[in-house]
Amino acid sequence: MNFNTILGSVDFLEFLRGKKATFLLSASVTKTAEIPNISQAGIPGKLYLTPTLDAEFLCTKEVRSLEDIAQTPKGVPTPALITRAVHELNPFSNIEILNLGLELIPQIEHFKIHNFDMKPSGRIDDGAKIQAMEIFQKGLSFAQSFETKDDYVILAESIPAGTTTANATALALDYECEGYFSSSYKNNPSDIKNQTIINALKRVEKNSDIFEKLSLVSDNMIIFNAGFILGSRANNLKVLLAGGTQMAAVLLVVNSILKSMDGEIDSSNIALCTTKWINEDENSNIKALLEQLDFPINAYASDFDFSNSSHPALKLYDEGEAKEGVGCGGALCYASINSIDEMKLIEKIESFLG
Amino acid sequence: MNFNTILGSVDFLEFLRGKKATFLLSASVTKTAEIPNISQAGIPGKLYLTPTLDAEFLCTKEVRSLEDIAQTPKGVPTPALITRAVHELNPFSNIEILNLGLELIPQIEHFKIHNFDMKPSGRIDDGAKIQAMEIFQKGLSFAQSFETKDDYVILAESIPAGTTTANATALALDYECEGYFSSSYKNNPSDIKNQTIINALKRVEKNSDIFEKLSLVSDNMIIFNAGFILGSRANNLKVLLAGGTQMAAVLLVVNSILKSMDGEIDSSNIALCTTKWINEDENSNIKALLEQLDFPINAYASDFDFSNSSHPALKLYDEGEAKEGVGCGGALCYASINSIDEMKLIEKIESFLG
Repeated sequence: MNFNTILGSVDFLEFLRGKKATFLLSASVTKTAEIPNISQAGIPGKLYLTPTLDAEFLCTKEVRSLEDIAQTPKGVPTPALITRAVHELNPFSNIEILNLGLELIPQIEHFKIHNFDMKPSGRIDDGAKIQAMEIFQKGLSFAQSFETKDDYVILAESIPAGTTTANATALALDYECEGYFSSSYKNNPSDIKNQTIINALKRVEKNSDIFEKLSLVSDNMIIFNAGFILGSRANNLKVLLAGGTQMAAVLLVVNSILKSMDGEIDSSNIALCTTKWINEDENSNIKALLEQLDFPINAYASDFDFSNSSHPALKLYDEGEAKEGVGCGGALCYASINSIDEMKLIEKIESFLG
Repeated sequence: MNFNTILGSVDFLEFLRGKKATFLLSASVTKTAEIPNISQAGIPGKLYLTPTLDAEFLCTKEVRSLEDIAQTPKGVPTPALITRAVHELNPFSNIEILNLGLELIPQIEHFKIHNFDMKPSGRIDDGAKIQAMEIFQKGLSFAQSFETKDDYVILAESIPAGTTTANATALALDYECEGYFSSSYKNNPSDIKNQTIINALKRVEKNSDIFEKLSLVSDNMIIFNAGFILGSRANNLKVLLAGGTQMAAVLLVVNSILKSMDGEIDSSNIALCTTKWINEDENSNIKALLEQLDFPINAYASDFDFSNSSHPALKLYDEGEAKEGVGCGGALCYASINSIDEMKLIEKIESFLG
């Protein structure tokens, strides 16, 4: 197992080789996920459960708020399996959950669940009504006061329909996005997604304040983590943004906020880590998103895939049916700098599927 | 390798996955071990050496106070081999020895040996004459002032004939014990053990103070560690009690002390961790012991056994000739949350036997 460099140099990730990581899962719900067929990250009609179940499975290997592990209609297993398998083979020192507006609190003990008094964000085709400035400041101050004994933080997300809100966010902030955003589907349900995004953008006025725009078209995860990134510079925390185009959107928001206030960021201790499925996705282009940043960014993609697995449900990843989530790209990059054996990892993931 | 939950939920042990542990070995002698054939945890006539040798081997892989590794007449190797093998494959951050009344101080340098000015406890069939209150308070204050950089403590024991004193202790405190206590023998030497316990209990008066009872029938390890558990609540230390029915007896003593003073304990950061051999033992029932506690307790058992070993001396474990000791159950649970490979562990243990 190894990783490829999308942007920047290998040095940052190489420096973290063998070092200790805290894994933070940003678990959030946007009611945008209620739009039929907009995402396959979970059980139709119950997508709001996905981040709760992902948090439970990651921490305990048990799904408690539902009987079975969340599986999509075509049977694509949640990427939480990948992240959990990495955790079993070379444990993160610490896992903490960020409740960024969940419907259901994960049923777990001992693990820290940070509550920020947030509600699920609204449907973006209905003017999401997010308290964007407030949520941004919560992320900012959480990061400023965040303390860890570990060497770096892996910041992951679980928010169904999050690529739709990420795409709308980047468009509202005037980034070039055509064909750049990923989807949990292989055959990107472009009609539904695009129509949702178009409806969302109708409400956005060109000259509004950035936080006004975010309040209409974004989600709690993106806004909070943009704050987190900026706040984390106070203590120069090393942060791996574990995710695909949604995490790219977090960085684009950071970029726009900096621009709006003529600010700068030392981004040398921040990197984005994603999967091969995102990096090689023909229907999206994470590199093109990241190249629009005005600050340099390190970005890496794991080279892990399921070509050495014979499990049909896992093969769906290689076929593009699922690509990212629950920080699996970051976890796979972490695996590659902590000498996890590829076959052992595949066997561990398969063992969860029975 | 994995672990099973005897009582409680997986969360506590899952939370400790990948975290750092200090290993504390309570090494103690009860002269009850001088009763012929009462225990096979050591060399007949020299059982008082066992905890000293276990401490030496655990820390240095050498047995210094005797020429060879303690082996029982049937050739069951000490469980110190298992704990040592775990330590070699994924080291505890720190090992410290608690001298709770040894005949011989372990010949080791650099490792901290805590001396508490205790003598071996007496034969319980002769009214053990333990300064129970004093020893309890030593455990209490040691834990209250105990500081560690690590995330949790594994508290283990080595005290031959300890299941006999544990059984007598639980009976003296009026717990239901029939068939619940383990033995280092496969064919539990019930006559000798039972006669010893009967003789011990004759001295116990129904209405005596709990510490009076303990002074007659218990041992230093149990009393000190009951104090340790209560004292450790002052700093909310996370403690894995690594052992079988003897560690269950420690918890029963904690329970009785709390009852006697109308006290309560927050037991959420305490767990018992034992072996599969104890958990599946047909001649004892650790779960039934723990279910008599008035506070909730997490209890886990490793699923490790020697079915994949071909070494005849190790196979004796699977046949029930040895089941616990030197914290091997806790060490095996620690192994399972630190991704130690089962075959590598077996090979390591085999390598010690030559």
